[in-house]
Amino acid sequence: MITYRLDYDWHPDEAEEKLMFEAFGKIVEEREKGVAGYYHLPEDSKLLEAETRAYLSSNETLRECETIVVVGIGGSSLGTKAVDAMLRHKFPEAKRLLFLENPDPVDLNEKFSRIEKEKSLFIVVSKSGTTIETMSIFKALIARFGLDLAGGDRSRVIVITDEGSALCSYADHHGLKAYTIPENVGGRFSVLSAVGIVPLTLAGYDTCSILEGASGMVRRFFDGREKHLEKKAAFIATHNDIYRMNVLFVYASCLEAFTRWYVQLWAESLGKIDAKGQRIGLTPIGQIGPLDQHSFLQLIMEGARDKSVTFLKIADFENDLRIPDISLENIEKTDYINARTFNELINAECDATLQSVSEEGIPVDLITFDKVSPGNVGEIIVYYELLTSLVGAMLDIDTYNQPGVERGKNILMNKFAKDS
Amino acid sequence: MITYRLDYDWHPDEAEEKLMFEAFGKIVEEREKGVAGYYHLPEDSKLLEAETRAYLSSNETLRECETIVVVGIGGSSLGTKAVDAMLRHKFPEAKRLLFLENPDPVDLNEKFSRIEKEKSLFIVVSKSGTTIETMSIFKALIARFGLDLAGGDRSRVIVITDEGSALCSYADHHGLKAYTIPENVGGRFSVLSAVGIVPLTLAGYDTCSILEGASGMVRRFFDGREKHLEKKAAFIATHNDIYRMNVLFVYASCLEAFTRWYVQLWAESLGKIDAKGQRIGLTPIGQIGPLDQHSFLQLIMEGARDKSVTFLKIADFENDLRIPDISLENIEKTDYINARTFNELINAECDATLQSVSEEGIPVDLITFDKVSPGNVGEIIVYYELLTSLVGAMLDIDTYNQPGVERGKNILMNKFAKDS
Repeated sequence: MITYRLDYDWHPDEAEEKLMFEAFGKIVEEREKGVAGYYHLPEDSKLLEAETRAYLSSNETLRECETIVVVGIGGSSLGTKAVDAMLRHKFPEAKRLLFLENPDPVDLNEKFSRIEKEKSLFIVVSKSGTTIETMSIFKALIARFGLDLAGGDRSRVIVITDEGSALCSYADHHGLKAYTIPENVGGRFSVLSAVGIVPLTLAGYDTCSILEGASGMVRRFFDGREKHLEKKAAFIATHNDIYRMNVLFVYASCLEAFTRWYVQLWAESLGKIDAKGQRIGLTPIGQIGPLDQHSFLQLIMEGARDKSVTFLKIADFENDLRIPDISLENIEKTDYINARTFNELINAECDATLQSVSEEGIPVDLITFDKVSPGNVGEIIVYYELLTSLVGAMLDIDTYNQPGVERGKNILMNKFAKDS
Repeated sequence: MITYRLDYDWHPDEAEEKLMFEAFGKIVEEREKGVAGYYHLPEDSKLLEAETRAYLSSNETLRECETIVVVGIGGSSLGTKAVDAMLRHKFPEAKRLLFLENPDPVDLNEKFSRIEKEKSLFIVVSKSGTTIETMSIFKALIARFGLDLAGGDRSRVIVITDEGSALCSYADHHGLKAYTIPENVGGRFSVLSAVGIVPLTLAGYDTCSILEGASGMVRRFFDGREKHLEKKAAFIATHNDIYRMNVLFVYASCLEAFTRWYVQLWAESLGKIDAKGQRIGLTPIGQIGPLDQHSFLQLIMEGARDKSVTFLKIADFENDLRIPDISLENIEKTDYINARTFNELINAECDATLQSVSEEGIPVDLITFDKVSPGNVGEIIVYYELLTSLVGAMLDIDTYNQPGVERGKNILMNKFAKDS
């Protein structure tokens, strides 16, 4: 279970109520017309999950592999990485996931040295099928590990891409196992499609419960039972010129990768030119508590009032590690926390920081997981996707494209075309 | 060697030249009067480095340990972590550094399980000596590993703290080896003091060259031979109401931890109320290229014009990993990069992204390492410290305090005092 608490002292007026009503209508329409396909994933991917599980039990190579190497970048890896990081400690038996994302030679070399072909499955993920970083790394893997795709290594490679993409044709050519991504599901909204569900299911995570949690949130939202979402979106959208940044302050180390997924989702979806030609830019920032209380907090407290802050905490870490009841000579000042659990300490720090930020007049809200569970992971993913769609609808921008990244790709290609 | 290139089409007018001149004067005064002590560290720490090396060779326990466990948070760990991450691949023989920072019970348990007392050295770092997270983790270590500080384990524990702090008295009480931090060196400026130099030297890094690189930058700056620093600071300070965020986009995975150090340095130093009572908030954001081209770049390109971007790249990764000259059926479109090195690819991506961002009219500058080396690591640390001091001087704020984080600490303490 997840609870959501808005601490804003803000009450939408009539125009703002209308904005919320219309945005909800737009989302309903997006779902019905298929403008964005992610709304259907929690239900549609249940079949995929079952099919993947069946494939796993029928395929000895997969069952025996210890590492799943995921080759992908951006939306093709961030969501899977986030789920893996959140759930790893609850699934100690899950196969290791190794992500090859960045085309940094030192980083790649180091990761290559940790791969044993005979114990690995390689999953290549690219929506377009021609992502330059991903395909370059895939080629390097083929060469380094002598992957024989015409023969014995065919069962070690899985491809996840758009129907009809170049990578899809490549998979057909070699008879590789391929999963497709619905065309109307963008990379940053794709974690509950094959992009995340296939590697996570093969690794051994309870993806069925992840989808259940996600599905429940979608159902309740469209039934009008998650009204806090619309209110939060409306606050953010109507204050976007004042609170230009949203800080997601997570109080658990296992949520760090989730903040990276959130940054992509938010930045690529909401950094846009709106229907009137105006540049909108809601900047997402991920922070880890209490770590970043010793870093970024000062800026939140005393810097310009241009941020809203979302705190995310886990009520029960299901871990009783305790601060021993020891008094250290001359450091007795710190004994007030003795005999408490670290669970109590970290959450008290979250509460104290939230209170101090809120008392400064900075808008805060709090999301609380009862505990870390696959269901909660599914729910929080859809919560953020819905929030993003709502804010985008209210700002009158195209939430689902990313035209701003094309120019750099063209410059890159021309650079090499000219050289050769 | 590091080169610095400012791509701003901006020429300071007379008033701005005066601002630069005065800020430089203020920094000279800070150094002379000891307002900030970090200017002297590159020279002063050379003795410390030599002494630490001597201590290492005289102490068998230290020499034989394989892991150095650093217990510290914020300024007590971020700098050391950044240097370790940057130089790790150049010093494969360096002892493993394990950082215990966050009081997250799941994270701590996982890290505890990777510690073998007999092969470990424990370094407790806290400027005040009463940091609640650090002292709580230290107590948990004592209990978990049965550290006998009255007897045999005394040589396994080192303390780094302010002269006269509670932790310093504790170390005296037990006869533990202790290193002190100059009082006028704040946590976020302390990486070249004992805080970073002791663990890095004991691990086996070439800290002597790190200090040399840092020292060279300090000398050239005060000799007036690094004028680009003042110009960059002046641009940032005089445009702080427009470009409220500075994005540090690093094109190397090994620089990720460095962006976290930069975020603390910038946020805690420059998120302040100025002499006129106005809230100043220059927000630092770290991004990893090319990874975040698939995430944050869209927002930079099309979002509000509220960011300046610093690109940081490494000309020579000293690694010849190559994209094989393989053509994959139906994916021939990606062959333009075949037979090139990943080194070429990642840097071409940096150049292409810089160009596309710059063509949008967003202010950019470029920092280029000729390669990763201890000297360059030392130089870039001091470069950012000096830049921070200059911007702070120009904005007329106290760069070296952090009053905004005290309230949360008090709320936390009261919370527990009330309960018990």
